[in-house]
Amino acid sequence: MVGGGEGAFIGGVHRIAARLDGQFVLVAGALSSDPARARASGRAMGLAEDRIYDDFAAMAEAEAARPDGVQAVAIVTPNHKHAAPAQAFLTRGIHVLCDKPLAATAAQAQAMAQAAASSDALFVLTHNYTAYPMVRAARAMVAEGMLGALRVVQVEYAQDWLTEPVRNKQADWRTDPARAGAGALGDIGTHAFNLLEFVTGLRVEELAAELHSFVPGRAVDDNAHVLLRLGQGARGQLWVSQVAVGRENGLRLRLHGETGGLEWDQEEPDRLWHTPFGQPRRLLTRNGAGMPEVLKPLTRVPAGHPEGYLEGFANLYAEAARAIRAHGTGGPPARTALPTLEDGLRGMAFIAACQQSSAQNAAWVGLAP
Amino acid sequence: MVGGGEGAFIGGVHRIAARLDGQFVLVAGALSSDPARARASGRAMGLAEDRIYDDFAAMAEAEAARPDGVQAVAIVTPNHKHAAPAQAFLTRGIHVLCDKPLAATAAQAQAMAQAAASSDALFVLTHNYTAYPMVRAARAMVAEGMLGALRVVQVEYAQDWLTEPVRNKQADWRTDPARAGAGALGDIGTHAFNLLEFVTGLRVEELAAELHSFVPGRAVDDNAHVLLRLGQGARGQLWVSQVAVGRENGLRLRLHGETGGLEWDQEEPDRLWHTPFGQPRRLLTRNGAGMPEVLKPLTRVPAGHPEGYLEGFANLYAEAARAIRAHGTGGPPARTALPTLEDGLRGMAFIAACQQSSAQNAAWVGLAP
Amino acid sequence: MVGGGEGAFIGGVHRIAARLDGQFVLVAGALSSDPARARASGRAMGLAEDRIYDDFAAMAEAEAARPDGVQAVAIVTPNHKHAAPAQAFLTRGIHVLCDKPLAATAAQAQAMAQAAASSDALFVLTHNYTAYPMVRAARAMVAEGMLGALRVVQVEYAQDWLTEPVRNKQADWRTDPARAGAGALGDIGTHAFNLLEFVTGLRVEELAAELHSFVPGRAVDDNAHVLLRLGQGARGQLWVSQVAVGRENGLRLRLHGETGGLEWDQEEPDRLWHTPFGQPRRLLTRNGAGMPEVLKPLTRVPAGHPEGYLEGFANLYAEAARAIRAHGTGGPPARTALPTLEDGLRGMAFIAACQQSSAQNAAWVGLAP
Amino acid sequence: MVGGGEGAFIGGVHRIAARLDGQFVLVAGALSSDPARARASGRAMGLAEDRIYDDFAAMAEAEAARPDGVQAVAIVTPNHKHAAPAQAFLTRGIHVLCDKPLAATAAQAQAMAQAAASSDALFVLTHNYTAYPMVRAARAMVAEGMLGALRVVQVEYAQDWLTEPVRNKQADWRTDPARAGAGALGDIGTHAFNLLEFVTGLRVEELAAELHSFVPGRAVDDNAHVLLRLGQGARGQLWVSQVAVGRENGLRLRLHGETGGLEWDQEEPDRLWHTPFGQPRRLLTRNGAGMPEVLKPLTRVPAGHPEGYLEGFANLYAEAARAIRAHGTGGPPARTALPTLEDGLRGMAFIAACQQSSAQNAAWVGLAP
Repeated sequence: MVGGGEGAFIGGVHRIAARLDGQFVLVAGALSSDPARARASGRAMGLAEDRIYDDFAAMAEAEAARPDGVQAVAIVTPNHKHAAPAQAFLTRGIHVLCDKPLAATAAQAQAMAQAAASSDALFVLTHNYTAYPMVRAARAMVAEGMLGALRVVQVEYAQDWLTEPVRNKQADWRTDPARAGAGALGDIGTHAFNLLEFVTGLRVEELAAELHSFVPGRAVDDNAHVLLRLGQGARGQLWVSQVAVGRENGLRLRLHGETGGLEWDQEEPDRLWHTPFGQPRRLLTRNGAGMPEVLKPLTRVPAGHPEGYLEGFANLYAEAARAIRAHGTGGPPARTALPTLEDGLRGMAFIAACQQSSAQNAAWVGLAP
Repeated sequence: MVGGGEGAFIGGVHRIAARLDGQFVLVAGALSSDPARARASGRAMGLAEDRIYDDFAAMAEAEAARPDGVQAVAIVTPNHKHAAPAQAFLTRGIHVLCDKPLAATAAQAQAMAQAAASSDALFVLTHNYTAYPMVRAARAMVAEGMLGALRVVQVEYAQDWLTEPVRNKQADWRTDPARAGAGALGDIGTHAFNLLEFVTGLRVEELAAELHSFVPGRAVDDNAHVLLRLGQGARGQLWVSQVAVGRENGLRLRLHGETGGLEWDQEEPDRLWHTPFGQPRRLLTRNGAGMPEVLKPLTRVPAGHPEGYLEGFANLYAEAARAIRAHGTGGPPARTALPTLEDGLRGMAFIAACQQSSAQNAAWVGLAP
Repeated sequence: MVGGGEGAFIGGVHRIAARLDGQFVLVAGALSSDPARARASGRAMGLAEDRIYDDFAAMAEAEAARPDGVQAVAIVTPNHKHAAPAQAFLTRGIHVLCDKPLAATAAQAQAMAQAAASSDALFVLTHNYTAYPMVRAARAMVAEGMLGALRVVQVEYAQDWLTEPVRNKQADWRTDPARAGAGALGDIGTHAFNLLEFVTGLRVEELAAELHSFVPGRAVDDNAHVLLRLGQGARGQLWVSQVAVGRENGLRLRLHGETGGLEWDQEEPDRLWHTPFGQPRRLLTRNGAGMPEVLKPLTRVPAGHPEGYLEGFANLYAEAARAIRAHGTGGPPARTALPTLEDGLRGMAFIAACQQSSAQNAAWVGLAP
Repeated sequence: MVGGGEGAFIGGVHRIAARLDGQFVLVAGALSSDPARARASGRAMGLAEDRIYDDFAAMAEAEAARPDGVQAVAIVTPNHKHAAPAQAFLTRGIHVLCDKPLAATAAQAQAMAQAAASSDALFVLTHNYTAYPMVRAARAMVAEGMLGALRVVQVEYAQDWLTEPVRNKQADWRTDPARAGAGALGDIGTHAFNLLEFVTGLRVEELAAELHSFVPGRAVDDNAHVLLRLGQGARGQLWVSQVAVGRENGLRLRLHGETGGLEWDQEEPDRLWHTPFGQPRRLLTRNGAGMPEVLKPLTRVPAGHPEGYLEGFANLYAEAARAIRAHGTGGPPARTALPTLEDGLRGMAFIAACQQSSAQNAAWVGLAP
C-alpha cells in the first residue's frame, strides 16, 4: 500500500476490502509521505520492518527485486500523488489498484495512461459503487433491454460534511485545488458520472455545467449542477453537492426508459426498484427472489442480511484477485466489469468539461466518446 | 362552474374541494363548450334548469343579474379557455377561482391581468400544492430562518402517464400546443416552479432550460431540465417529466441552506423532513408534535389520520371563502397565502423563458422580478 | 345528526364524509346532550331553527312526522349513548349510521340488534378503515386465493395520545368505563379486530388476552396483547395500545398465507405490499397499475394524488347512499361491504372475550362464530 | 474452527467476521464431521496439512500441545454438536466463540456451563445482532433513562425461507428435532429474545406461548406467538416465524416507555428511530449527528456508508480479540457487552418455557431470573 497511514480514511477502507474475502495480505507499505509517520503506521499494522518504506520509489524498487515481492499495490494517496507511484509500480509489472479520481491534472493522467499502456500489469480504479450487486443487476437489466431505450436519467451525489469550513486531514487536501484538482466534482462527481455510464452503457456526449463554491473562502467547487446529453438521444441531470444539509452519502441513480424505470440509492444498496411500465413497482433485493445467478459471486450472505459499503468495495478486490490469478496463469485476461484506466481518463475529461462549461457560463461542452 | 362536465378530471376535483368544508354550494354552470353535454352534465349534478347555461357568456350575464346570483365561479376549462370567462366574470364583480396555468398565451394572460386589475373581485389561481399544511410549515420555517440562507434547491415533478402516446379527453388538450400552450412544462412545471418560489420566498432570476419531446409525434414537451439561479445567490435544478416510468405524481422539493435542510414529497404530503445541521433528521407530521398553531385551520383530523390531495385543494377554497366573506363585509382584504394572478403571470413568464432558453440551446434567460 | 356538537372530533369527520361526495345534506340535529350547546352548535352549522333539537327523542319524533324529514341519521355520541337514539330512529324507519363500537354494554347492543331486526331501515356501523380502497383490494386478493390458505396474521393499532393522563372532551369519556365500556380495546381494538376479519374472511374462534392500564389512575385498559386462533387453522396476534410513544395512528395489518403475503399501514393508505412467494415484493397503489376496476367507485383522483382518512370514511357514506336509494326504489337491497349491526355485535363479543380472558390470566376464551 | 466446511452458511460468516478487522487468522480446523469433507475444506481454505483435523477431539489435543496452537476456536456446528467441542477446548484453556443457540438439549447446555465455569478461558456466544452499533445505541439510551420506565415491548423475527418444505444442508438440520432441539424458536427466536433482554436490560419473568408447525410433515415449530411479562411491570409480545411470506430477515424491536419510544429493524441496521414523547420523531444513524463517542470502535466508515450484517458480526470478534488480549496480559478481564454462556443458558430456558407453555395450551410459565 502507498498512502493510507494513520488518520487517513480511504486507506483503512482498502485494507478491510482487501482482507474481507481472504484474497490479499498486506505485507509492505509506504504509508505516508512523512517517513516517521510511514514507519509508525507500518509498525501499527504489523508489517515486517524491512518492508516498511519511507517512500513509494524505494518500495517499488525493493519489492520488485524480492522473490516474495508484492503482486499488487493499492495507491490511496491524495489525487495529485497517484501518478508517480502508479508509474513506478506499473513499470515494474506490479498490478495497481488506485483510488479515484485518477489524478489531479490531465498531465498526470496522461502519464499514468502511458505507463499502463506499456505495462503488462493490471490497473484498477476503485470506483467502488459499481461493484454493489444491485448496481450490477441494474446494469444487466438495462443491457437486456428491460427498460427499452433510455430517455431520462437522473443521478445525484449529495453530502453535507463540507457545509461549514472544515479543517482536518480529510478535508484539507480535498479542498485544495493543487492537491485535489477539483472539489466535490472530483471527489464524488466522478463517482456519479462513472456510475451513470456504467449502468446505462451510454456515453455522455455533451454537458452544460454550473459549479459553485458556497462556503466562504473555499477554493474549490462544493456544488455542481450539470445538464447532460447522452448517446441515443437520452437526456439527464447530474447534481453533486457537499453542502446539502441532511444528506449523508446520498448517491442516487434513476433511469427512465421507454418501457421501464429503475431507482437505486447507495444508502440502501441492497434494494433496487424496478417498474415495468403499466405494472406495479417491484422491490428487488440482493439475493432475493429473481436475483440472477451471475451476481452470486458478488454476495456473501442471504437476502435480508445487509451487505454494505465495505462488501461492495471488497467485490472490486475479489474481482481483481481473480483477474490477477488468471493473468498469472498466462491464460486470457478475464473479462471483468472492473473500472479501468480508461474510466479514469473519462472521469478526468468529465471534470475538465464541467470546469470549462462553467467558466463559459454553462455553455455546452462536448466529451469525446 | 365553467367547464368540468362529464369526463373531465379537474372539474370534479374542484367540486369536491369546494364542498368539503361546506363553504360553497354549486348552483350554476356552463359545464361544457358543447351545449348538449353542458346541459346533461348540469342535470347530472342537480342544477336548476334555469341555471344550466350553454356558454359562460350567458352565464355571466344572467347570474350577474340575479339577486341570488353566484358569488364566485370556478374556471376549469383547458388553458386556452381561461381568459374569456375570467374576463366576463371579473368584469361583473364575480370572484374567480381559475385552474392553472393561467392561460395558453401571453396575450390571454395579459387580458386576464387587466380584467383583474380593474375589478374589485378576487382572483385565485388554484396552485393547490401550496395549500398542503406541511408546505405551509416549510414556508414558515424558511421565513423564520431555520435553514439559514438558502444555497441549493432541487424541485422535480415527475409522472409517467404520457409515457406512450395517449388519446383521451385529458391527454388530448394537454398535448395540443394551441389549447395547452406548453406540455409538461405548463401542466406540471408551473406547479413545481410556483411551489419553489412559494416555499423559498426567493425569485428565480435566470434559467437555462432544455425541453424535449420523447414520444414520437408529440407536439409539446414531455420532459424539461432547467438550471436555476435564484435570489440571494441560491442555485437550483428543476426537472419536469411526464415520461418518467415508475413515477405517479412525484412532486418533490428539497431545500438546503446554511444551517438546515428540508425535504417534502407530494405523495406523502403529511410528512416533512427537517435536518438542523449537526443534528439528527426529524420527521415532522401534520398535526404532530411541534406543529405550529397557525396551521390548524388547514387541517381537519389528528396526526396519523392522513389528509391528501383533496384536502389540500379544499384549503384553497376554504381560504377563498374567508377572503370573500371579508371582502363582503367591506373590511380590509384578508392577507392570505392564496396564489394570485401575479403568480399566474409569473408561471407564464417561466414557461416563456424555458421555451426561449431551449430554443437557444439552453442559453441563460432572465426572468423579470 | 345526533351528537357531534362543538368540541367533538368524530362528528365533524362524519359531516365532512357525508358531504364529500354530495350525497347527503345535513338538515337536522340533536347535537349535544346539553340543550344550550345543542342549539349553539346547530346554529353554527346553519340548521333551520325548527330542526335544531334539544334531544334525540324529540328529533326522531318530529322528523318522522315531517314530509321532508331526514332519511338517515348519524349517531356520533359516546358509546353508552348509541343504543337509545338508534332504537328511536330505526323504529321509525329512519336509516342509521352509527359510530363504533356498537355500545358500552351487551344489553345496549342487544337492544339495538332487536330494533334493527324489526325495522326495515338500514343500520351501518362506521368501521371506516374497511372502506379504504387498498383494504378492499386486500380483501379481494385474499378471497381470490392469491395468498393461498392463510397461516399467520398480525394486526396492530398503536397510538400514543394517552401516554400521559389526559383531560379533555375526547379523552374523558373514552377513559370512563361507564361511558366507553372499554378503553383502547373498544376505541381502536374493535377497528383492528373488524379489519382483520373483514380482510381475511376468517373468524376468530378463540383468543387469549392480557389487558393493561399503564397510566396511573386510568380506569380502563390502555394496552392489550391478544393471541388469536382463527378459522382454517390460522394463528395470529393482535396488539392495541394508546401509550405507544412514537405512534400516531398506527393501524397495520400483515397477512401471510401459503403462497403470498400482504402488508398494509393506515398511515400510508394508498399503498399495499404484495409478495407472491418466490417473487419480488410489489407495491400496489390506489388507482395504480393493476388496480381492479371494481374499486374505481371508491376513488376520486388518479394514482399519486393521495386520498386519506376522510375519503375512506366518505366511501362508507357513498355506499350507504347507494344502498338507501336502492332501498327506496323497492328493489332488492344492494349487496354491499358495509359494516353491519352484526359486525357491531361481533366487536362487542370481542371486547367481552378479551376482558374475560384477561380476568382469567389470559385463558383461552371462545367466540361464537 | 470446528464445523463450517463446504456448503455451510454460518461458518463462512464467522470466517469473514474474524478476518474483517485483522485480529484473527484461521490456522487450524476440524471443518466437518465427515473426515474427507473436513480435509477437502481445510485445503480449500489454505490450512497447513498438519492442522487439518478429522475431528474436534484430535484438534483440541494437538493444538493444545503446540507452542503455536490456536488461542481461540469458533464452533459453528449444528446445535447438538456444540457441547462436546466446547468442553474439549475450554478444558484446555482455549477460548471459545460458539454459535447460537447454546445447544440442542438442557443436558448439553449444563455440561457446557460446567466446563466454562471450571475454565479460565472465555466463552462467547455469537448473538451477533447485539453488536450492531445502533442496537448498542438503543441499549445505552434505555439505560440512560431516555425512554423512562418501559411499558410495552414488541419484538419479532420473521423470515419466509421455510414457507415450503425445503431440503438442503441448511434446512435439514434446522428442521430435525434431534439436531436442532427446536425450530424457528431456537434458530431465530433465541436471537429475538436475547436482543430484547439485551437492549431493555429487563428480564422476561413469565411467558405464554403458542408454537405451530404450518408446513405439513415438519417436525419442529415454524411459527411462535408469545406473550411476555417482564420486570418492572413491562408487557410484550414476541413473534417468530419462518413462514412469513414477504419477509427476508425481519428482526425488529420496538420499545415504548413512559417518555419515549424506539424502533429498530435489522434490515436497516444503521438507522434507529427515536421519539421523545411530545417531540417529532428523529432518525438516528450510525456515525451520524449525535452518535455517542463510545460507539466509534464499533464502526469503520462514516455515516451514509452502510455497514451491515458482516460488520455487526465482526464487532463480536473484535471485542473478543480485545478481551483475549486483556486476558493474556493477566490484567483484569475487560468488561464487555459480549454475549456469554449465561445468555446461552437463558436462551435454552426461553425455548424450554415456550415449549412447556405451548404444550399446556399457552399457560403462563415462569423464567427464573
